[in-house]
Formats: sequence, structure tokens, C-alpha cells
Amino acid sequence: MVDVSDKPATARRAVAEALVVMDQETLTLIIDGHATKGDVLAVAELAGIMGAKRTAELIPLCHPIALTDIGVEITPDRKASALRITAHAATTGPTGVEMEALTAASIAALTAYDMLKSADRGISIEGLRLVEKRGGKSGVWERTEDREGSRPPTARPVRRTRPTGRGT
Amino acid sequence: MVDVSDKPATARRAVAEALVVMDQETLTLIIDGHATKGDVLAVAELAGIMGAKRTAELIPLCHPIALTDIGVEITPDRKASALRITAHAATTGPTGVEMEALTAASIAALTAYDMLKSADRGISIEGLRLVEKRGGKSGVWERTEDREGSRPPTARPVRRTRPTGRGT
Amino acid sequence: MVDVSDKPATARRAVAEALVVMDQETLTLIIDGHATKGDVLAVAELAGIMGAKRTAELIPLCHPIALTDIGVEITPDRKASALRITAHAATTGPTGVEMEALTAASIAALTAYDMLKSADRGISIEGLRLVEKRGGKSGVWERTEDREGSRPPTARPVRRTRPTGRGT
Amino acid sequence: MVDVSDKPATARRAVAEALVVMDQETLTLIIDGHATKGDVLAVAELAGIMGAKRTAELIPLCHPIALTDIGVEITPDRKASALRITAHAATTGPTGVEMEALTAASIAALTAYDMLKSADRGISIEGLRLVEKRGGKSGVWERTEDREGSRPPTARPVRRTRPTGRGT
Amino acid sequence: MVDVSDKPATARRAVAEALVVMDQETLTLIIDGHATKGDVLAVAELAGIMGAKRTAELIPLCHPIALTDIGVEITPDRKASALRITAHAATTGPTGVEMEALTAASIAALTAYDMLKSADRGISIEGLRLVEKRGGKSGVWERTEDREGSRPPTARPVRRTRPTGRGT
Amino acid sequence: MVDVSDKPATARRAVAEALVVMDQETLTLIIDGHATKGDVLAVAELAGIMGAKRTAELIPLCHPIALTDIGVEITPDRKASALRITAHAATTGPTGVEMEALTAASIAALTAYDMLKSADRGISIEGLRLVEKRGGKSGVWERTEDREGSRPPTARPVRRTRPTGRGT
Repeated sequence: MVDVSDKPATARRAVAEALVVMDQETLTLIIDGHATKGDVLAVAELAGIMGAKRTAELIPLCHPIALTDIGVEITPDRKASALRITAHAATTGPTGVEMEALTAASIAALTAYDMLKSADRGISIEGLRLVEKRGGKSGVWERTEDREGSRPPTARPVRRTRPTGRGT
Repeated sequence: MVDVSDKPATARRAVAEALVVMDQETLTLIIDGHATKGDVLAVAELAGIMGAKRTAELIPLCHPIALTDIGVEITPDRKASALRITAHAATTGPTGVEMEALTAASIAALTAYDMLKSADRGISIEGLRLVEKRGGKSGVWERTEDREGSRPPTARPVRRTRPTGRGT
Repeated sequence: MVDVSDKPATARRAVAEALVVMDQETLTLIIDGHATKGDVLAVAELAGIMGAKRTAELIPLCHPIALTDIGVEITPDRKASALRITAHAATTGPTGVEMEALTAASIAALTAYDMLKSADRGISIEGLRLVEKRGGKSGVWERTEDREGSRPPTARPVRRTRPTGRGT
Repeated sequence: MVDVSDKPATARRAVAEALVVMDQETLTLIIDGHATKGDVLAVAELAGIMGAKRTAELIPLCHPIALTDIGVEITPDRKASALRITAHAATTGPTGVEMEALTAASIAALTAYDMLKSADRGISIEGLRLVEKRGGKSGVWERTEDREGSRPPTARPVRRTRPTGRGT
Repeated sequence: MVDVSDKPATARRAVAEALVVMDQETLTLIIDGHATKGDVLAVAELAGIMGAKRTAELIPLCHPIALTDIGVEITPDRKASALRITAHAATTGPTGVEMEALTAASIAALTAYDMLKSADRGISIEGLRLVEKRGGKSGVWERTEDREGSRPPTARPVRRTRPTGRGT
Repeated sequence: MVDVSDKPATARRAVAEALVVMDQETLTLIIDGHATKGDVLAVAELAGIMGAKRTAELIPLCHPIALTDIGVEITPDRKASALRITAHAATTGPTGVEMEALTAASIAALTAYDMLKSADRGISIEGLRLVEKRGGKSGVWERTEDREGSRPPTARPVRRTRPTGRGT
């Protein structure tokens, strides 16, 4: 573990992303709300948030961090035949939150797989990676070049409106 | 801890319930989907399910149990000015799952409070208790008399229909 | 999750309470030290303290918090035919500790149920709720009116003396 | 959660895989044993094994499972400029272990990223997916067609020999 | 991890022990019930039981086990100027519970240290080791020879009587 | 739990140690890299680090702590016929990290036992104790006198060189 005892506490933020690539028919199940295990997007987003809080338990050399923010957003992407996951994490502390953002995206993606696997066992998780990182000695880092050439970071998902009301 | 080494593995099931009592205005927020932290019922149900899986970590003398089923259902109840929570748990094993059902109901209720506390800090959790228990040496136990006289166990919530679809 | 990245760290404190309502005979078992699973009050108090430290794992949108104090006190109350649980939590941080106090009270109450359920399966947990909250932007909040009319917050339990010595 | 109370316990096994794609220079650091945080492969393999045991805590609708085997193998692949991760899981129970194998591969991949991120922040995790699944009602499932056309499942990594001795 | 998929489930039991060696004055604090942090023996015993349930999370290559029994007993030993800890664990399964018994003894010992460290920081934990093991292919194993020559396994602590009653 | 709400955050550090005493033949297995479960020292060191992060979950009255450093070093010691474990922990906070250092040493020792028990079930863990403590109101504490007379604190293990490279 890197000793961060003498590093100052600064505001830090990180964003990660992942794609859950599936058949068009499976994507239709989600969009139409017909996935048999329930609301895939809501459950996966929540699992991602909760997973991020366990990062230091899962990743051996990660420091325990008092996260001040975690968020996960998942949007169906017809063109990519995938769910597009974006996760962000923030803290004020001596070390960064890249692993928290990546863990959130990863657990959200695995949860989506779990809820869809009876329909499409061949789903794969692709492009799980850091998008940007702010704060700390190294300052801002942004993904500038796309290694695969297929998922330009400018195509960031916009916040969807989620209907949450349910009658009594 | 009770030694269950020599007890046979049998099918076991338990049901627990709780009420989250709040102002009518707060209940309206949930029903209309205007709670600021998101979909209260979906998040609380999921938290209850996940909490049940942690029962043996939380309750000192509980045995770790390979749960075969957990479910939490929450319905707004205008007359009681409350959310009505029902949780069930099942296993095949040497010991019962009452604590798992109660823990599910309890964590679901606390989660609902967490999501509503900025609107109504005075919310209280009432009537957290076992409703029924099946399996094991003691067989079937059902709550027959209502100690408080206010929440007859016949008023079981029916499964609500939950709209889960969201457009891309 | 509410983003608290820009909120200042201030001293925060919260108190919660709950009642574990049981038969007079069951209460007598506890007072006389005859509960078969052991010292109900000591085990439940400890479980409450340990449970409070797991709050952020259990309640999906809670922030991880560096608690500086947690305490749980349980006293038998003959008149209410109940155990009366009071839990407090404290931190210096950007967000409050209401959920930690409520989780402590809840896990303590569930643990008491677990230790007594073979004697009295019909025990119910009532009045699990916040009593007061200090610190942060919203300042002091105290329960001023009792919704149920049955558990006046002035009847706060006094610290009991606990004999801890045991011969060799 | 799917109710598996009435499903028979059968032997089940699953295999998952992932690629951690990085610069050739970063791969050289691992192969030469010069990664600053230590032995990347050994730490990541162990983290994968430990992560698999936490699957039911992380994935909301997964059942707790008494795993009888978990293993993670990671081999550097010069041609793919990547670490190739294969994880397997086994149990005898009423439900499958796909999520355990996938979680193992995922946590191993995230751990490798954590240990290498100071050298190469742009590393991405690709092709996290199920390879095969045995046991249960649905019998054997094997990945037969490669969706991406780039990572044929026949190119399975062979067990590497690991030198473990260290002098006193 | 050893693959136990094909091993039969049999009854298994293990016993471990440890000594928490301290000054006579510190031991007197415990016996007289004057330790400032509370009832050392009760808290340490409970912590040992709860710790045993986390064994598979702590010890990387341990299998998750459905424990059917765990117990920890701690007795002050004037002659050894120590607390004598004995822990036992049991399961019916394909693998043994030695690590669960040892983890219980270890966490109980660490907890005792935590509660006494303000009085005696020099306390040390000695002789943490397996005493016996039953079940499985290798059958019965008992510690027959004492490596240190100082703690004969015949000097097994007898169950103390613990007063648990407390007045209202 | 001790209320540390009003204590200032200061730099704190603690060092703990333990011996895992075994037969010379077993020690030879480790040194020659022939232990059947894998690289004992690497796995045990990592388990110690990860265990330290769980201290507040395991030790009932420990505060959750944002550790800034944890490290575990294990060296074979032919003369003592043992593995010598040294663990250190650091934080900047209102309370010390003795328990984190001791927990790291303890989990590392238990993990070594787990990996060696098929070869030598009689292994015992000795001398698990605090070596030094810095920071906080009480300042520096160092073990000055050796209670057992057998393990002088001056015989501190030096950092070993660990070969980590493995070919593709």
C-alpha cells in the first residue's frame, strides 16, 4: 500500500465507464420493462453505488476513503446494442477515487448481467476504464485518445428522466 | 449460539412486517414520485433483500444460512399514513429464518426513512414483528392475536404492479 | 447519494430510540438473568454498536462516516412491558449521523428479539425513531410532539450500573 | 430474487474470462517484475478469489453460495498487449456460479488496474464474459461464437509455473 | 483454494486456544470488574463468535462454511497471569473448521487487548493454536505434545457461571 | 466505545509483531517454495493488509479509521524455527492504530497457518503484541522489556528482496 500519511487532503473526483454489450432483443426487454428479474437499470445503478463503498475491502492495496459522492447512470444505447454505464466518485482526502469509480461501474455491469443472464448468457462487458480524474498532485487527467477507436468519450450519456411514482 | 449440528435440514420459511409511519404529505411525495432521493420503494425493497443476506454478520448469535429466497414488498397505505413492509425469507437447513425476514423488513424501513428524512424527520417505524414461521421442529407459527389491536394480520398487502420500462 | 463534497466538516450528534415490547414473563426472564441464550442486554447493546459501524453498507445512499462515538443503552421498563433502547452516534464530518443512531437501535432491538424468540415469538419492535439531531446546516432538531401519544421523550432512561466482575 | 427453495442441489461449475489491455511497456513492467506496487499477478489472482466469496453481498439478487472451489489464473499475452484472466467457480447447490466466476475475473482485473495505474492510467478491461457453465437444469453452456471476432475461446491460457521460494 | 467439490459432507469440529498474558494488576481489574471499557470477558467472547463467522472473508483460501456451532470461553488464570481462551466451531460440510476456531480465539484475544490496552499496553497473545480436530478424511487429531512445555492441554478451563441478571 | 469527538486529529503510527512457530521441515517447505497451497509469505502479507482494513468490523469498540498506511512483512527465521511477522499501520486522526497493526499481524499469522496446516497442524502463534506506538496525547510508547525473555525487539526483520517477475 502506498503510504499517504504525508499527502494533503484535496478535493478529488473520478469518472469511469463501461459497456454491457448484448443482443438487440435483450436490450428491447430492458427498454420495454419486460426483464423477468425486475428493473435492470435501477437495480444495477444502486448496486454500483453500494459496490463503490466496498472498494477498499475488494481491492487489496486501496485505502479506505470517506466518499463524499458516488453516482451511477445507465442508459440503453441502441446503436452500440449495449447499456452504457457512467460512474463518478468524489472525496476530499489524500488519495484518489479512480478505483471507486471503476468498481461502481464494474459492479453495476455485473448486476445488469445477473438480471439478464437467463435471457442472454453471452452478454459481455467491454471498455471498463477511467474517463477522467481530477485533484491531487497529478491534477487533471482525461482520456484523450480512444484505444479501441469505437467509443469516443465525447458521446457522454445525458441524464435520463426516471419516473418513480407508483400508485397505492 | 445454539448448536444445530445434529438438527436435520428441513424447508423453512418466515414472514415479517413493519410500518413506516409518516405525514400524509410525505406519503404523497412517494406516491407521486417526488421524493428527492429517488424511487423510495424500489431502493428500500432492494436494501431489505441485501440486508437479509447480512443477518449473520449483524445479529451476534445467528447462524450463517444459505438463503434460497428473500423478498420484500412495500406498499403505501393511505389509511395508516404509512408504508407497509412485508418481507419473507426461506432456506433448507437446520435453523429458521425469522431473523432474516425481520432484518429484511428492518433495513427496508430504515432505508425508506433515509430517503424521506429531509422531508419528514419525525417518521417512526412501528410494528416490526414476525407474522409467520414454517418448518423445523416447532412447525407452523402464525400471529393470531394482535397485541396492539391496530394492525390485523389479515390486512396483508397484495402484490403491486410495478412499471419498470424506461425509454432509451 | 447527496453530494457532500462542498459541505464543511462540523460536529454532529444524533439520538434514536426503540421499544422491544414483550410479555411480562419474558421481561422477567431478562431481569432475573434466566434468558437461555445469555445476557440479553449486554449482547444487544454490543450488537447495536457494531451494527452502527456497518450503516453505510446497509443503507444504500448513506455516506461512509468516521464515527467518533457510538453508544447503546437498554433498560427494562416494567410499565411499558418492554426493553427501552436509546442509541447515540457522533462524528465530525460533512453529513449527519441519524442513520447510524437509528441502525444501532434497530440492530440492538433485533438482537434482543433473537435472544428471546424461543420464549416469546410475538415480541414486536415499536417506536424506532429519531429523538434528536445536532450539528450541520439545519442545526438542532428535537422530537417535540409524540405522534403516538404513548412514549413521552422526557422519560429518558438513566444510565444503569452494570456489575461486570467475575471470579476466576 | 429467484426462489430456489425447491430446486435440487447439483454440482455446478462456471468459467469466466477478461482481458486487461495495456501498453506494451506496461506489460513489460509486469513480466520483468518492475511494477512499483509489487507482484501484480499474484495480488490480482488472490483478490479475485477473495472477491468471488463476496458475490452475494455485491450483486443484489444473487443467492449466498457455499463455494467449493474458486480459482483465478492470469497470464501476460504479448500479442493482445494484455493480461488474460480466467476464473472458475464451483459449488454443489440449487443455483449456478456464473456470477461468482465473473466477479472473480472482474475484481482480479480491477486489482491489476490498481497496481498499474500510476504507470498507465489508460488501461481498459475488455471482454469480461462467461466462457462456460455446467450443471443445473439447463446443463452445459459454452461460448461457441465470438461476438467481437477477436478473442477465440480456444486460446485458453495454460497453467504457468510460479516460482514461490524466497530465501531467509 | 483446495477444490472440495467432490468431498462428502461430514460432521466436523475443531477446538483452538490462546492465552492473553498480562500483569497481575490488569488481571485483577478484570476479575474485580473495574476495566474502564466494560465487561472484558463478555465482549471478547461475543467478538470471537462474530469473528469466526467472517473467517472466509479474512483468510484468503478458506471456503465459506455454514457453521452449525461456535463458542468462545474465557477464564482468568491467576497462575499464568493471563486470560485463557478456548474456542470451538462445528459444521457439517466438505471441509474442516480449524480456521474458524482459530479465528474465534484470535479475535477474542485481540478484543481483550483492546479493552485493556489503556491499562497495560504490553499485553501479549501467546499459544494461539489448534487443540483438536474431528471429522473428515483425516479423522481425529489432538495436540499430544506441548511444544513450549508450559501449557498442558489437560488444563482445560471449566465453564464458569456467569451472572446475567440486571435489575430494572 | 470511547468518545473521541473532541480529540484532535494527529499523525499516529503503530507497529506490531508475531511469530508463527513451526517444525524446521515446515519452514524448509516455505523457503524452498514447496508449500502446496502456494506462496505462503505473499498471501499472508496481503491477507494481513486486507484484514487491517476490517479492524473496526471485528473489534467491537474500535472506531472506524481512515488508514493512510498499512504494511506487513514476513521473514523466515531459522533460529526461532518460525516466521517472523511485523505489521505497521498509520493514520491521521483522533485515535490510535494499535489494533489495526495487531489485527494485520494476527490475520497474516492465521493465513500462514491455513496455508501450512496440511503439513504441520501443530504450528502455534506466539508473541502477538505491540512493539511501538507514536502520536496522540500519550506520545511514544516502545516495548522496553521483553516479558518472555526470548524475542528481543532489537532483532527487527530487514526488508527482504522479493522477486516478482514471471515470463509470459
